[in-house]
Amino acid sequence: MSLVQERWDELADIKRVLAIRDWFPATSGNLAIKVNHDPLTFLVTASGKDKTKESREDFLEVDQFGQSLYDTHLKPSAETLLHVEIFNKTDAGCSLHVHTIDNNVISELYADKGEIVFQGQEIIKAYGLWEEDASFTIPIIPNYAHIPTLANEFSKHVSAAAGAVLIRNHGITAWGRNALEAKKYLEASEFLFSYHVKLLSLKALVR
Amino acid sequence: MSLVQERWDELADIKRVLAIRDWFPATSGNLAIKVNHDPLTFLVTASGKDKTKESREDFLEVDQFGQSLYDTHLKPSAETLLHVEIFNKTDAGCSLHVHTIDNNVISELYADKGEIVFQGQEIIKAYGLWEEDASFTIPIIPNYAHIPTLANEFSKHVSAAAGAVLIRNHGITAWGRNALEAKKYLEASEFLFSYHVKLLSLKALVR
Amino acid sequence: MSLVQERWDELADIKRVLAIRDWFPATSGNLAIKVNHDPLTFLVTASGKDKTKESREDFLEVDQFGQSLYDTHLKPSAETLLHVEIFNKTDAGCSLHVHTIDNNVISELYADKGEIVFQGQEIIKAYGLWEEDASFTIPIIPNYAHIPTLANEFSKHVSAAAGAVLIRNHGITAWGRNALEAKKYLEASEFLFSYHVKLLSLKALVR
Amino acid sequence: MSLVQERWDELADIKRVLAIRDWFPATSGNLAIKVNHDPLTFLVTASGKDKTKESREDFLEVDQFGQSLYDTHLKPSAETLLHVEIFNKTDAGCSLHVHTIDNNVISELYADKGEIVFQGQEIIKAYGLWEEDASFTIPIIPNYAHIPTLANEFSKHVSAAAGAVLIRNHGITAWGRNALEAKKYLEASEFLFSYHVKLLSLKALVR
Repeated sequence: MSLVQERWDELADIKRVLAIRDWFPATSGNLAIKVNHDPLTFLVTASGKDKTKESREDFLEVDQFGQSLYDTHLKPSAETLLHVEIFNKTDAGCSLHVHTIDNNVISELYADKGEIVFQGQEIIKAYGLWEEDASFTIPIIPNYAHIPTLANEFSKHVSAAAGAVLIRNHGITAWGRNALEAKKYLEASEFLFSYHVKLLSLKALVR
Repeated sequence: MSLVQERWDELADIKRVLAIRDWFPATSGNLAIKVNHDPLTFLVTASGKDKTKESREDFLEVDQFGQSLYDTHLKPSAETLLHVEIFNKTDAGCSLHVHTIDNNVISELYADKGEIVFQGQEIIKAYGLWEEDASFTIPIIPNYAHIPTLANEFSKHVSAAAGAVLIRNHGITAWGRNALEAKKYLEASEFLFSYHVKLLSLKALVR
Repeated sequence: MSLVQERWDELADIKRVLAIRDWFPATSGNLAIKVNHDPLTFLVTASGKDKTKESREDFLEVDQFGQSLYDTHLKPSAETLLHVEIFNKTDAGCSLHVHTIDNNVISELYADKGEIVFQGQEIIKAYGLWEEDASFTIPIIPNYAHIPTLANEFSKHVSAAAGAVLIRNHGITAWGRNALEAKKYLEASEFLFSYHVKLLSLKALVR
Repeated sequence: MSLVQERWDELADIKRVLAIRDWFPATSGNLAIKVNHDPLTFLVTASGKDKTKESREDFLEVDQFGQSLYDTHLKPSAETLLHVEIFNKTDAGCSLHVHTIDNNVISELYADKGEIVFQGQEIIKAYGLWEEDASFTIPIIPNYAHIPTLANEFSKHVSAAAGAVLIRNHGITAWGRNALEAKKYLEASEFLFSYHVKLLSLKALVR
């Protein structure tokens, strides 16, 4: 199996599992996986598709500027530039962007603080943090409609090969060295968002 | 493959995906997809079926008055007249009606206002609105038991080829130029309802 | 296909769909479908099985006293006596008992009133009530540990061929003339419970 | 079929069903099933795997100290020592550890009390308690980062062949004489957690 096919299958696996959770409402969300390092090429979701379906047109291969490598009627997802930032600045191998109810709620509740900090949760180990008092911070940035401006703001928070950034009232982008790590960062973040939302209202009510 | 079979398969795909989400509780919900433009014919769900099952009797083809084209024991869904309004007044190609907990809750909370307005959410782009301050309004109409009266009230809010209307304590009807767009309008609306419901109670509790 | 096989398949279909929704937590829940009218025989779930699995031992056929028709190591569900009441007193053809979070919550919140009344919801039509101001009452009975006592109390609320009864902090039993109607009554009730629970807390918070 | 293959299949079945519920976020969770009694060997999940996937490397067989029986690149789950405590101290045959939103919320809300007590719920019968006023207590222990310390604290609450312990902001471990009983204890506990969380906020709001 060719390298590009191998990467395609890894990304298709993730797409299938996240689609079952309804993490791609209204054709939203986009996924990217690196194929070659130098020069950089990566597979990214084609724009405007219903991600509960599977086809040979789900992804297309693009270069370090997010432009398709070949002539095609497919367009890369509008937010491909965010994945470009990640792959160009770090050793990340996979990057996932999804809209969920709870990541939108958290992004709105903590927008003024510009971040949300998680501490004292076992699941933080998924971020590679094993100390008892470890904390993990997820930055929250404004949702600029102008994608290059958004990519620029986003880029300020991209320095490690794995990480997560919330865009206000929009969604999360989580990335990692490979598909497994990117998915792990994504799922740990969503777990923490859902936990936090639920605990917040309960503590307000019962204490 | 014939045109009617192609449309059947598109509608069956949507029915399957929405059934998994439990968006057709107690045999509720109905779906329609246009087959011919002039004279108008469309496929619509047969009345009273459990939509978690699939059969050759799931849909039947009806004319511009919502009457079956052929002799059959199947009856079109009771609310076929609402789809008739949409197909007769606009260039819509597909129309979806579902009952969910959150669309019922929103319809009750905002019934007195007669509408709910969404603004500042990325997912609004699903409605084809790309400006940063774009807003999308979903009208809320009373749930008249008399279907022609309901269809008449509903019709007042049907002018574009894509849109969405809430019926109080009943459900949403969302439509679009084709199956993909109708599903996109429906999913964007449900996402916004769920987001709004959750944020509303959290803001009341923690601010 | 024999009649008993036909009924088996109908009940297995329902079991499969409800299992996906996690409506049988911890091997709870039981399902029954009538095979013969006179003398009465019906299929009922075998006790203690994990209902996310399927086997030829999922159901067994019992008589009008809830006793197995044949020699078997399988035991009918502990609450078979409730289904006996329904089949003996009415023309019901199918009876479903499930534990869900929301039916337990409603049963506890309204236990003192002894019932919950739903009105003004479109989904009430699933109960065969088509008038605009129709209401549907679901009785709530105490959860007697002694099954014959429970069956006796339950029996007081069994008079029509379709209906629903809540048992406090236990679950719902819904029945109908056939599998489709029983499932419709069950799903309409669960929809109303979930809607009510959600609206109740929102109204307390935002009004 | 060999005994180890039989046990493998039982554990794989549970893994598949719990993965669909998203009870293994971010590669978390671990499962164990006894193969031989004396000397003790058991199958346990390999560390760091995405549990929505299935492979011949999902589990490995370990001895009474939690060490692999054979030479392998696979590592047993970090919390294998907790399963070791259970199998060494009791007649349990299966032990399941999962992270869910609701078990984390409950573990935080009741951490100071060191336990949560459930009473008056039908589902308590899943724990083998059939009296009307039976109660079931789930201890809540601190989440020591040092696994041997955690295992030691955990061990204090392990005396019966079936039981459940919550680890604060971490997850639940539930076990039983066999796969069916362990899953039953797990599901009953999760049902009670979700029920309790929902009722708690509703009672605070509407009474």
